[in-house]
Amino acid sequence: MDKNRAMVIFQPSGRRGEVPKGTSLIEASRRIGVDIEALCGEKKICGKCIVRIEEGRFEKFGITSGPGHVSPWQEEEGKFISADRKAEGYRLGCVAKVEGDILVFVPEASRAGKQVVSKAARDIHIDHNPAVRVYYVQVDPPTFEEPTGDFERICRGLERDHGLENLTIDIFALRQLSGALRKGRWAVTVSVWNDREVIRVRPGRVEQAYGIAIDVGTTTVAGYLCDLQTMEVLETVSMMNPQCKYGEDVMARITYQMTNEDGLQRMNDDIIKGINELIEKAVAGTHPSEKESKRPGKTAESGNIQEDGKVYRCLTREDIEDITIGFNTAMHHIFLSLNPEYIGVAPFPPAIHHSMDIRARDLGIHINPSSYLFVLPVEAGFVGADNVGVLIAEEPYKQEENQLIIDIGTNGELVLGNRHKLISSSCATGPALEGAQITFGMRAAPGAIERIEIDPETKDVNYKVIAREAWRKFSAPGDMKAKGICGSGILDLLAELYRSKVVLKSGAFNKADLEGHPRFRKNPDTGHLEFVIAWAKESSIDKDIVITQKDIRQIQLAKGALYAGCKLMIQRMGLHKVDTVKIAGAFGTHIDREKALIMGLFPDCDIEKIHGVGNAAGDGCRTALLNIQKRVEANWCARNVEYIELTVEENFQQEFMESLQLPHMTDEFPHLEGIVPDDILNQ
Amino acid sequence: MDKNRAMVIFQPSGRRGEVPKGTSLIEASRRIGVDIEALCGEKKICGKCIVRIEEGRFEKFGITSGPGHVSPWQEEEGKFISADRKAEGYRLGCVAKVEGDILVFVPEASRAGKQVVSKAARDIHIDHNPAVRVYYVQVDPPTFEEPTGDFERICRGLERDHGLENLTIDIFALRQLSGALRKGRWAVTVSVWNDREVIRVRPGRVEQAYGIAIDVGTTTVAGYLCDLQTMEVLETVSMMNPQCKYGEDVMARITYQMTNEDGLQRMNDDIIKGINELIEKAVAGTHPSEKESKRPGKTAESGNIQEDGKVYRCLTREDIEDITIGFNTAMHHIFLSLNPEYIGVAPFPPAIHHSMDIRARDLGIHINPSSYLFVLPVEAGFVGADNVGVLIAEEPYKQEENQLIIDIGTNGELVLGNRHKLISSSCATGPALEGAQITFGMRAAPGAIERIEIDPETKDVNYKVIAREAWRKFSAPGDMKAKGICGSGILDLLAELYRSKVVLKSGAFNKADLEGHPRFRKNPDTGHLEFVIAWAKESSIDKDIVITQKDIRQIQLAKGALYAGCKLMIQRMGLHKVDTVKIAGAFGTHIDREKALIMGLFPDCDIEKIHGVGNAAGDGCRTALLNIQKRVEANWCARNVEYIELTVEENFQQEFMESLQLPHMTDEFPHLEGIVPDDILNQ
Repeated sequence: MDKNRAMVIFQPSGRRGEVPKGTSLIEASRRIGVDIEALCGEKKICGKCIVRIEEGRFEKFGITSGPGHVSPWQEEEGKFISADRKAEGYRLGCVAKVEGDILVFVPEASRAGKQVVSKAARDIHIDHNPAVRVYYVQVDPPTFEEPTGDFERICRGLERDHGLENLTIDIFALRQLSGALRKGRWAVTVSVWNDREVIRVRPGRVEQAYGIAIDVGTTTVAGYLCDLQTMEVLETVSMMNPQCKYGEDVMARITYQMTNEDGLQRMNDDIIKGINELIEKAVAGTHPSEKESKRPGKTAESGNIQEDGKVYRCLTREDIEDITIGFNTAMHHIFLSLNPEYIGVAPFPPAIHHSMDIRARDLGIHINPSSYLFVLPVEAGFVGADNVGVLIAEEPYKQEENQLIIDIGTNGELVLGNRHKLISSSCATGPALEGAQITFGMRAAPGAIERIEIDPETKDVNYKVIAREAWRKFSAPGDMKAKGICGSGILDLLAELYRSKVVLKSGAFNKADLEGHPRFRKNPDTGHLEFVIAWAKESSIDKDIVITQKDIRQIQLAKGALYAGCKLMIQRMGLHKVDTVKIAGAFGTHIDREKALIMGLFPDCDIEKIHGVGNAAGDGCRTALLNIQKRVEANWCARNVEYIELTVEENFQQEFMESLQLPHMTDEFPHLEGIVPDDILNQ
Repeated sequence: MDKNRAMVIFQPSGRRGEVPKGTSLIEASRRIGVDIEALCGEKKICGKCIVRIEEGRFEKFGITSGPGHVSPWQEEEGKFISADRKAEGYRLGCVAKVEGDILVFVPEASRAGKQVVSKAARDIHIDHNPAVRVYYVQVDPPTFEEPTGDFERICRGLERDHGLENLTIDIFALRQLSGALRKGRWAVTVSVWNDREVIRVRPGRVEQAYGIAIDVGTTTVAGYLCDLQTMEVLETVSMMNPQCKYGEDVMARITYQMTNEDGLQRMNDDIIKGINELIEKAVAGTHPSEKESKRPGKTAESGNIQEDGKVYRCLTREDIEDITIGFNTAMHHIFLSLNPEYIGVAPFPPAIHHSMDIRARDLGIHINPSSYLFVLPVEAGFVGADNVGVLIAEEPYKQEENQLIIDIGTNGELVLGNRHKLISSSCATGPALEGAQITFGMRAAPGAIERIEIDPETKDVNYKVIAREAWRKFSAPGDMKAKGICGSGILDLLAELYRSKVVLKSGAFNKADLEGHPRFRKNPDTGHLEFVIAWAKESSIDKDIVITQKDIRQIQLAKGALYAGCKLMIQRMGLHKVDTVKIAGAFGTHIDREKALIMGLFPDCDIEKIHGVGNAAGDGCRTALLNIQKRVEANWCARNVEYIELTVEENFQQEFMESLQLPHMTDEFPHLEGIVPDDILNQ
């Protein structure tokens, strides 16, 4: 072996590979294909990537491993790894570098689980007016008297039969034309983009055309395969954003790009590859049998298959003739291979706002080769095309009532207004609401606590984990296999801690009440206060899952940023309150409206007027796919919604500090009356 | 070695390589990179690819070669190879197939020489209105109050300073924007295509932009590198069409495509590679020193270099921002990877007439990545974009007088008319006028006889070869190194044979006069009559270079097709004669107007009104490069010039038969009076 390289083996997966000496363990895991949590993007602040270096001679693998084969211990690791654990060989994956052959154990808590993603398409009204339409045309064969070329011949037919004028044709479609005309005996079906350009030619008569709307979130990518004629959603597919390994949030990825020469290239390659896989998955879903679905677009032929009495429309990738795609501005830039560096630095200008029509082939997206991707326009550096998607799906600019739309993802995006005026903003909720920076925070994967209830009397905890129906109360402890707490669990948690008086308005533990409670304790290692949510015996990681005072502070910071943002926007609009609150994003599907109000995530509102609108960004992409007018509307939104940079508002700091508190009974939260006990609100 | 493969070594070049058994020698030579003449495209009718299989054990190469290692002799080879030569191991390269290791000798006569191509740009008037223009723009940096994105920011500046509105930007150019803006301290130069799309962004102020006009002939490819601002032609470059190895004429290449599964792909790859090389060559020409010019666009930086007191503008490939390209319809289709099959079959419809704007990157052409190629429009299956180029360069549609424009290449293209009406046609002159199908015909390469004079009294021959200034009369015989006769030599030849009374009006040798002349004889092998042009001692091939009765018939067929075509067109237009004849193409540069008239290449015309217009097709591409209005004009031409298929005209056969004769003194050729002796004209 090259003496500048070393063998790294990850356990328990057993995956192995050689890497250059000096490679960090996190980087090595990426190269070898082992997913280790790296929420902060190697900024050494999340402490999620703890691994253990095994010591000894491992004959099975033919290597000798030990702490001597990694770079020396750094002081900063001490923040996350106690002296005892250090002695056992624990290290931070982003700090420790490979210096020789090693066997690395990745503890369950550090493994990046397969996320549970569910972004179903909502049933929303869309006017049918797709960018890609199919037209059937029949022409006379050429003669000596009339030897006009193939393209001009079908253009004449298309003008005569369908009123289409001044058409052009993409070179890739032109290559199909002469053969298709002859195969179809001078009758073809042409796909026309924007009534302007021919992008596909097929022999004979074909009625169908398909498109896919894609919503690229920081964490999740969702795709909606649609019939462009019937508007039916044929398949909903989703996957984790493969860029997660470069960092959990937008800033982490921008940092990754700035600190790695090929950072942009690598992240771009990953998302392009991911989207191609997503498209394959969507296309495979249209095939009846498993066997065929394994290799869609490769072995399978396009066409109808009848099986078990059902008719399946079996698509290939080439049957996808239109794509719309939305994302936040950083994901937008990385997807387009645009340097995202400048949107990470004040005043955060994006490279472009306007939508773009880009040939799929120019981006390496494998669909019908002449087809375009419609890239939704961007509002600002921190309010992206995804927010434009939310806008065109929810259409607050067509309403008289004032709507506050909150899209809570890794970054919070806010829109407020009505048909007269719309303003948008973003607030750095940070990844705490999604589980990062929380001791036992994790993604929404199996084993994550997603719902919590705390009994105000006994302060006993009942909870539910993802991938298990039964709550703790109705299960044997060993069946819960809890691993951590995900975003929706964290929202529940703060509300419940507050309502059950475990914490006070200030967010501090209610020591007076908790004194002597078995779940409340001082951590023997750190000396910090913590409250046990799930006992070690209920967990799959053999540890008590706790919420610490510091965790609570992190959640408060996030909710405070969001609340302050909403409040400043309401002030800026000259309003006192909003008529409706819409919550979009994954939270929008799972959120408990009452608990969101209890924890003070946003200003007071009639609970009946709080709506979860699910993946509205994805819905927006879908409306743009099926109705070309929505693309015009999207550009209008991107340039007419006034973006406000909250952090430079005069009273931002003041509002933010005040928003850290949990709600109390003032004029500000009349709707909490009867929901939260008086003695709590009036403490 | 794989037992299904064999080693083939070509002498005298010594190039070698392995090929699958069953590969023809011609195909093997192509794969190994040895150029063997293959004028007919392996149709086994030109007999140019004769090679000799060496017999014996060649220790130097480690192989044993012999006739047993090639496929058996075929009767059709006997047409070109005598029994004696057969015994020496001569074979037709397109017939004989590799069956074992062989050493192949390629005789001088079969070697495809490096063609002498000279297609200088003419000094023609062009209005300055290029499709690509550069604009300098300076903007304010973004602030919190005004954080508009980079693209919208420069758009605002471009509208303010230059009146440009509704610009879009190509994704590749967008990738340059953010970096260039910051590098140029918020001042950039943008290249805008058609006042519509940004295709390049450079930091700071740049004044220059460049483009290249390319004329792809069946045999020759020429390029004109132009300064888009000053319209100056910086470099003229040319090369042989690398597709020549697939056949000399258009039909041979169409046949190659139809008989080889990857035929289109291979020919397309070759022309794309060739054009990329041509562009590199043009760019290299702008660099001062040889050293740099070796690797243009790779080592050299774009910019001005001062050397020996001169300022050189050193370009890279990325500095080429626009391309216009013209070709005949078959070359057009092959270049665009469009199946050319249907333009080879009546009624010869092309896939498309209209011009196309295609991104260079979509065709694999390496220039500024966002730039477009403008592909000139096509008139008909046999009147291509090259003819449109001739039209927009010569503008007969703006004149009152009737012009006949003849573009003689491998195919003859004719245009006739004036501002009121224009008709076009093509006539199958075949490749005879370019040297194919003529016993000693060859391309215009060193050693080719290009000028001939025959003394009417002594019937002695004086001639000039390419790459040697001195005529035969003034040279030692051994210095001539004649190898064959090229196109312009062939035109001279028939006129001189006729004027000197070596042949009669009918084209038959004037046996009565020639009896006993040392140059006139019956070939001992074939028994056919022939006339010696150059003696073996004057040749580099150790053979008498002769013109046979059959050769003369071939030339008559070609000139007859052209003459009949012209005449039918004149009739069709209801004219008796034309006012002006313009001769374009390589012939247009070299042709002797008087001799063309003597041989009856086209109907009678005042010699003063016969003009050679050189590479008018190339000039047309150049005008389209520098004046966008000419692109509109080109499309107008392509659709408004009426194409006439001559072969289906009622009296075509009759006219053609009559046109085979050499001119005689009737009303048809009044302008020959005094040029050709009366006794000849009145025989």
